[in-house]
Amino acid sequence: MSQENSTISLKDLSFIDQIKTMAVIGPSEKRNFFFLRSHQQSFKGKLYAVHKKIKSIPGFDDGTQGKIYTSVKEIPEDVDFVFIAVPASKILGVIDDCVEKGVKLASIFTAEFSDSGTREGIELERELVRRAKNKLRILGPNGLGLFYPKLGIAWRNFFPKQAGNVGFVAQSGGICNIVIYTGMEIGINFSKVFSMGNGADLDAVDLINFLNHDSDTEIILCYIEGIKKDRGKAFKQLLNTIKKPLVILKGGKTNTGSMAVKTHTASLSGNQIIWKSIFKQYNLIEVDSLEELINAALLIDFYGIRSYENVAVLSISGGYGVIMVDLIEKYSLKIKPFKEEIEERIKKKLLMRGTSPKNPIDISAQLFQSESVKEIVDIALSDENIDCLVMDLPSYYFDQKYSFRKDSDFEKNLIDTMCLGHVHGKSLIPIIQETHCPDMAIRIRHILREKKVPVFKQPLEVIPLLAKITNYYKKLKEK
Amino acid sequence: MSQENSTISLKDLSFIDQIKTMAVIGPSEKRNFFFLRSHQQSFKGKLYAVHKKIKSIPGFDDGTQGKIYTSVKEIPEDVDFVFIAVPASKILGVIDDCVEKGVKLASIFTAEFSDSGTREGIELERELVRRAKNKLRILGPNGLGLFYPKLGIAWRNFFPKQAGNVGFVAQSGGICNIVIYTGMEIGINFSKVFSMGNGADLDAVDLINFLNHDSDTEIILCYIEGIKKDRGKAFKQLLNTIKKPLVILKGGKTNTGSMAVKTHTASLSGNQIIWKSIFKQYNLIEVDSLEELINAALLIDFYGIRSYENVAVLSISGGYGVIMVDLIEKYSLKIKPFKEEIEERIKKKLLMRGTSPKNPIDISAQLFQSESVKEIVDIALSDENIDCLVMDLPSYYFDQKYSFRKDSDFEKNLIDTMCLGHVHGKSLIPIIQETHCPDMAIRIRHILREKKVPVFKQPLEVIPLLAKITNYYKKLKEK
Repeated sequence: MSQENSTISLKDLSFIDQIKTMAVIGPSEKRNFFFLRSHQQSFKGKLYAVHKKIKSIPGFDDGTQGKIYTSVKEIPEDVDFVFIAVPASKILGVIDDCVEKGVKLASIFTAEFSDSGTREGIELERELVRRAKNKLRILGPNGLGLFYPKLGIAWRNFFPKQAGNVGFVAQSGGICNIVIYTGMEIGINFSKVFSMGNGADLDAVDLINFLNHDSDTEIILCYIEGIKKDRGKAFKQLLNTIKKPLVILKGGKTNTGSMAVKTHTASLSGNQIIWKSIFKQYNLIEVDSLEELINAALLIDFYGIRSYENVAVLSISGGYGVIMVDLIEKYSLKIKPFKEEIEERIKKKLLMRGTSPKNPIDISAQLFQSESVKEIVDIALSDENIDCLVMDLPSYYFDQKYSFRKDSDFEKNLIDTMCLGHVHGKSLIPIIQETHCPDMAIRIRHILREKKVPVFKQPLEVIPLLAKITNYYKKLKEK
Repeated sequence: MSQENSTISLKDLSFIDQIKTMAVIGPSEKRNFFFLRSHQQSFKGKLYAVHKKIKSIPGFDDGTQGKIYTSVKEIPEDVDFVFIAVPASKILGVIDDCVEKGVKLASIFTAEFSDSGTREGIELERELVRRAKNKLRILGPNGLGLFYPKLGIAWRNFFPKQAGNVGFVAQSGGICNIVIYTGMEIGINFSKVFSMGNGADLDAVDLINFLNHDSDTEIILCYIEGIKKDRGKAFKQLLNTIKKPLVILKGGKTNTGSMAVKTHTASLSGNQIIWKSIFKQYNLIEVDSLEELINAALLIDFYGIRSYENVAVLSISGGYGVIMVDLIEKYSLKIKPFKEEIEERIKKKLLMRGTSPKNPIDISAQLFQSESVKEIVDIALSDENIDCLVMDLPSYYFDQKYSFRKDSDFEKNLIDTMCLGHVHGKSLIPIIQETHCPDMAIRIRHILREKKVPVFKQPLEVIPLLAKITNYYKKLKEK
């Protein structure tokens, strides 16, 4: 990999750990002061409201919070961060006020700048960056800004309170909402999420760079529609310095997709050949859907970066085992035989007919001797030839009425079994098919989430990802 | 396509509509008479129990059912169908008894025949077919036999009571359970399901042929691990006569996969090149996972066979719209612009900033003016250039606390919107991301299931299938 040592022009954001005061400027009465109320629910510092006309906001100025100021300049203490939702026509005055006040970061929700595609919009966006004078850093416009759970900065109500180790950068706020709420369900938490909108000042290059140095962030996710032409070199230099797993979903890979990007954020989704070469040249994890992006974070958070090359499969139904093997080999992972001694030991535990101790293991109705399932998985994972184990378990088995026989420790044993990956320092991937018991699947998923075991609903959700993470791991080791 | 007119050697199964009496032979006390109790719960005809030793079965012989017979021959009336679970060593005597009694169909659950891989097992399987003398038809051994909801024949308790139009053939019973229970959840019902096990007598060729002529069956699903060498020609002849959509998941496509098949059912998963040429030569829908198999039935059942070539996309988040467009084009479907007049009409309905009336439509926060969403989708579907519409809708929007503004008809309007496909004779595919509200997603899915609108959780679950069904449709029209 070429070493480019010239300095990258990147903007400093390290101050955001220090945000103690914030103001929402121009909260909209039509939206029932949504963004003000969201921050009121969660922000741990002091929150102010600024509005030119509105004198009173029910539940805000009559509560524990302060009065409504007509300008940020009137606020009787320093303001670190502002969320701006005034109409585009009012934006320049507000920016001037923020600069004068010494505000450090503004998140501009207002749209109709370069995203409008008009000459006026583009010029207005340029002008607001000029007015910020490199003193005020800007997220947006046309974005939702910053979700920073440690400080309680959250543009939406009911965002998770818990902070985590995943950083995410996207242009679109809607995308961020889906990722944050899905993470909440499957068990990943975020250090910082940036919805950068048009990226007029802080862009993907700056924000990924920030996350790369941010001590709270261990995994970086990015949904990227494009990089501005003059930032291509900086982006490549940044990619040379990335020390953390970087998972990228590129939007606008096809012709119509890239046209849609233009409507959406006015960024150039760029030459597809350049993007292809970037994904080839740098060690990144490229994914195809938002769901795959989130699942990549889940796997890396729960199991780290590792090889999934040699897979053991265990199934309740031999047929399902065959399907999983086909998919695993389709994605260039391997199903090696167990070592002879391991296979012998598994064989001794398999007492029922219709079972098989070979890889893929078929346990059939011996599932209901759950103690033995635990022992079998334990033996399989002790095989040095094996990196991980994928097992399927239809959710209805967790409903006692579907049992063939009494097995009072069934659920406990199965949960313990699925945690055996961590015991062996290997990874175990349960595929719990929802079938007609989605409530059971959700219940078990929540139990396993606490134990850092990632649960999937079907093989195609996870097998392509195991291959991608394995490739990333191999390239990392080659370095 | 070559026309092969020679007669196919296929076995007649048309009598199964007439099954009025059945017996479970050798119900296992260890399994708490599982298969007897399952049929006791559901079978609409007269059910008998046969066991050499056991004199009493709690809840069976003391209830409304009869005594326990020591042989099927002792039963005082004709027996149409038997479910056999005696040990392999006792099987030949039982088969002789059934032939003598004039039983028409036996489902043999017992394993350790050709599936054991031993010479003895293989020979025993041949012998039991010989003893059946073409008078008794056999499903199995090593299978779960027949699920036939109209007659209440069900090897498992809690199988759905409702009969439907989907027929399914698989070797593995575990696979059938997953398919049946998943169908129950997503809203597809079955005419007949066959778990044929080793397929010693009735094999996939016979059973697919039966479903092809069965008037209750409109869609045929098949999980197939292999076809016996001497049945290759019959299989191809059958494929020439298939009149219904046939969706096939081939197990054992890779080296290890095909070795696993050998362990599992002792069938030869066959030369991969032959299978490739079969999928090329005949108009079949080939899928890659069991989930895709089930979803194919869902789409075909709810929307029929049609072209999905020209797709309209509508998203709440522009970014998610871009991702969907990329995936749709990746799978060779098209995102054409709307007709000018249509785009103009959509534009008039989009009153909020940050929206776009072009394909992909971005409705952004106008979602909360749900009446207008319905109008927009209605206009989009009226475009002659459009075959179908894919829309995404994160589940949390159905929880009122996430609304920006009061919109009391929100849920009703959105449900109505998602039903507009049927109004226009086109198909509308909702992708309802579960996020942190899986309960909301399930609730809405259940409402839409009643209205024959198929719901998916993520684009990759459905977009590849839309392409496969479109290809099937095109080939069908070429004929």
